[in-house]
Amino acid sequence: MTFKIGLLGYGTVGTGTAEIILDPLGRNKLLQKIEIAKVGVRSLDKPRSPELPAGVLTTDLEAIVNDPEIEIVVELLGGLEPSRSLILTAIANGKHIVTANKAVIARHGAEIYNAANDAGVYVLLEAAVGGGIPVIKPLKQSLGVNRIQTVIGIINGTTNYILTQMTEEGADFDEVLAEAQKLGYAEADPSADVDGYDAADKIAILAAIAFGGRIKRDDIPCEGIRQINATDISYADDLGFVIKLLAIAKANSDKDSLQVRVHPTLVPKDHPLANVNGVYNAILVEGDPLGRVMLFGPGAGKGATASAVVSDIATIVGILQTNSTSQKLDPLLSCSHDHFSELTPITEVETRFYARFLCQDVSGVIGHLGMSFGKHNVSLESVVQIGFQDELAEIVVVTHNVQEGNFRQALEEIKNLDAIDSIPSIIRVL
Amino acid sequence: MTFKIGLLGYGTVGTGTAEIILDPLGRNKLLQKIEIAKVGVRSLDKPRSPELPAGVLTTDLEAIVNDPEIEIVVELLGGLEPSRSLILTAIANGKHIVTANKAVIARHGAEIYNAANDAGVYVLLEAAVGGGIPVIKPLKQSLGVNRIQTVIGIINGTTNYILTQMTEEGADFDEVLAEAQKLGYAEADPSADVDGYDAADKIAILAAIAFGGRIKRDDIPCEGIRQINATDISYADDLGFVIKLLAIAKANSDKDSLQVRVHPTLVPKDHPLANVNGVYNAILVEGDPLGRVMLFGPGAGKGATASAVVSDIATIVGILQTNSTSQKLDPLLSCSHDHFSELTPITEVETRFYARFLCQDVSGVIGHLGMSFGKHNVSLESVVQIGFQDELAEIVVVTHNVQEGNFRQALEEIKNLDAIDSIPSIIRVL
Repeated sequence: MTFKIGLLGYGTVGTGTAEIILDPLGRNKLLQKIEIAKVGVRSLDKPRSPELPAGVLTTDLEAIVNDPEIEIVVELLGGLEPSRSLILTAIANGKHIVTANKAVIARHGAEIYNAANDAGVYVLLEAAVGGGIPVIKPLKQSLGVNRIQTVIGIINGTTNYILTQMTEEGADFDEVLAEAQKLGYAEADPSADVDGYDAADKIAILAAIAFGGRIKRDDIPCEGIRQINATDISYADDLGFVIKLLAIAKANSDKDSLQVRVHPTLVPKDHPLANVNGVYNAILVEGDPLGRVMLFGPGAGKGATASAVVSDIATIVGILQTNSTSQKLDPLLSCSHDHFSELTPITEVETRFYARFLCQDVSGVIGHLGMSFGKHNVSLESVVQIGFQDELAEIVVVTHNVQEGNFRQALEEIKNLDAIDSIPSIIRVL
Repeated sequence: MTFKIGLLGYGTVGTGTAEIILDPLGRNKLLQKIEIAKVGVRSLDKPRSPELPAGVLTTDLEAIVNDPEIEIVVELLGGLEPSRSLILTAIANGKHIVTANKAVIARHGAEIYNAANDAGVYVLLEAAVGGGIPVIKPLKQSLGVNRIQTVIGIINGTTNYILTQMTEEGADFDEVLAEAQKLGYAEADPSADVDGYDAADKIAILAAIAFGGRIKRDDIPCEGIRQINATDISYADDLGFVIKLLAIAKANSDKDSLQVRVHPTLVPKDHPLANVNGVYNAILVEGDPLGRVMLFGPGAGKGATASAVVSDIATIVGILQTNSTSQKLDPLLSCSHDHFSELTPITEVETRFYARFLCQDVSGVIGHLGMSFGKHNVSLESVVQIGFQDELAEIVVVTHNVQEGNFRQALEEIKNLDAIDSIPSIIRVL
């Protein structure tokens, strides 16, 4: 007995998926039960590798999600539409879904999972976060028995590559971005990556699973890496930090609300995430009583992403093979919550800050900084005069944990001090 | 509807397991369906925390594995007997098994899994390897769609703690072992840990899952860390390595046989495993087309191990809840192989070596070393005169990849050279 699947899309991940399924020797034996029945593409004219039997390729995507013989639809189109509509039609037709599409789940997850629960089908998405790293299923099946405290991820390979190159070469952002675009690590329009939107989609998904409540994607404060420069990377290094784009989801101590945010962050060099370099991704999960677990691996790329896609297909086939009649979903693999988590506004989040000031009169300024920060309950861990730029002295401040709103108010006041020329950099500290 | 479980043993991991299940708020909702019906202990006199309702504690372990109301037996006794017999009786009675016992699975896995397959029950063992790190289920469900090439683990926390302390303090083995025993990180009889037997049990389990064939535990060459000393750690550091006790399972290029081995190893400092310190564990898996994934976390301890135990209980409860009637096992969670993998004898394994020689006449010796190694097809990556001990010069050699048998033959010859005083250290290099 074989199980028929239909692929929507036959680009990098689609062909990678077919390469695994069509060459099952030496892999899990279950793969031999999977038959690629239909593959939907935009045009039949392009040469395709691996080649598929005649009649498998089609431009009629609707026909795939309506094909009564297909039990699993694998959505690899990316983007919001037509992915969302095709997924919903497939679900309505009782088909299980495997997808690598973080955007459609982050934006339309509530609608999709409600439909899936009604229809009694699974929507699995291991490939949507962390490429080939097993993270979604471990969060659902293993780590979820803990009270999760934090999920912190380096989950965008492009920005991690850029920051790693900037750190190793002392180069500035634009230069490294151009190089990354030449190497194919960054898109011609790099916004989704470098402005943090991709990481925000992914942390929305991880937070929903880890904390058992849906996340309003638009409520996630998101700051990218365009403003990071060689100067701050070098000062951070002196202070014992590296700069990483982190996606953070954290239970507030009251336990009733979450903070979810994406921003560049100074990470202490002895932190496990500090050594995650290049296009690698890693997700750190802290829970009670587990402690700290980190999952590390290739966050993107054909083979890694296809590995995750096929693992989801195999998971569903394994279930179908043992349990073809039950309409009930395994609560460890399906979405069993339908409320939205309350997210803390960024102004109420507590974090440490690094800030760099350019100023004229160092001794006077330090006193004024101390006073302004003190007035707004911002206590300082260190104040260092660290260099000069042109005629101006550079002062770097690292705060203790402070409420972001208080810190911003203090900065407003400090900006207006006569001796302050400018505040070129403000970066959060882990 | 609740699912009744029986615990065999109520020591550290058993009480940790109860603490999670009895306090389910903020954890996966499925935990609310689990009822601890019976807990088997040696004596009823000791005070126990968490306290259990009257009648739950019993000294009659047989009664637990024969109780018709209990659906899952959680074996936390450790050791071979009575664990093996109790597990087999429970299986014969149609109960699913969750165990943290690497020894019984490494030694009696074939018998236990054959019985489980006949009875249509699961035997899950996430806690047996890597403590709280999700590794068994990810290997089965996610990574297994790849052609696995290597599994390399730092999977014994005691030895990793000792080696880390030796590295950081420049201290010798005996000293650090005594300290570790005082802190409770090492047993009074430390043999299972420091001689590598625990790591060998664990890599037998990982290799069986990763490569889909059973492993004869007694065929795993196993070398511990007693002979590692501050001198070699310091020389390794100079050469760009740290010393770790690695458990390695690797497909030979012919694909029909495996090498599985446990030994101290020089690990390049830029390798992901080099930064895994203290009692932390990590498992690195390389597969095609996935690439390299590393899973990192607490390898032991009450909370971490209990987290893994409860995740297995929840996995079975999830399946029972959706699929109470089927006798078929999900092939991704059960053992679907029954042959034994062929293991390469250590003499035929190819690896790099580090060897340290004490000798009288440096210039003469280097020539002789080169000749003896050359005669046995051992090619050298570097030969360094690195220090002095008393009147003797110390020479350190690092080889290219060589067949271990050839290397040992060359050493036999070199030992008899007049100018060679002794060969204090031979350590494999990753």
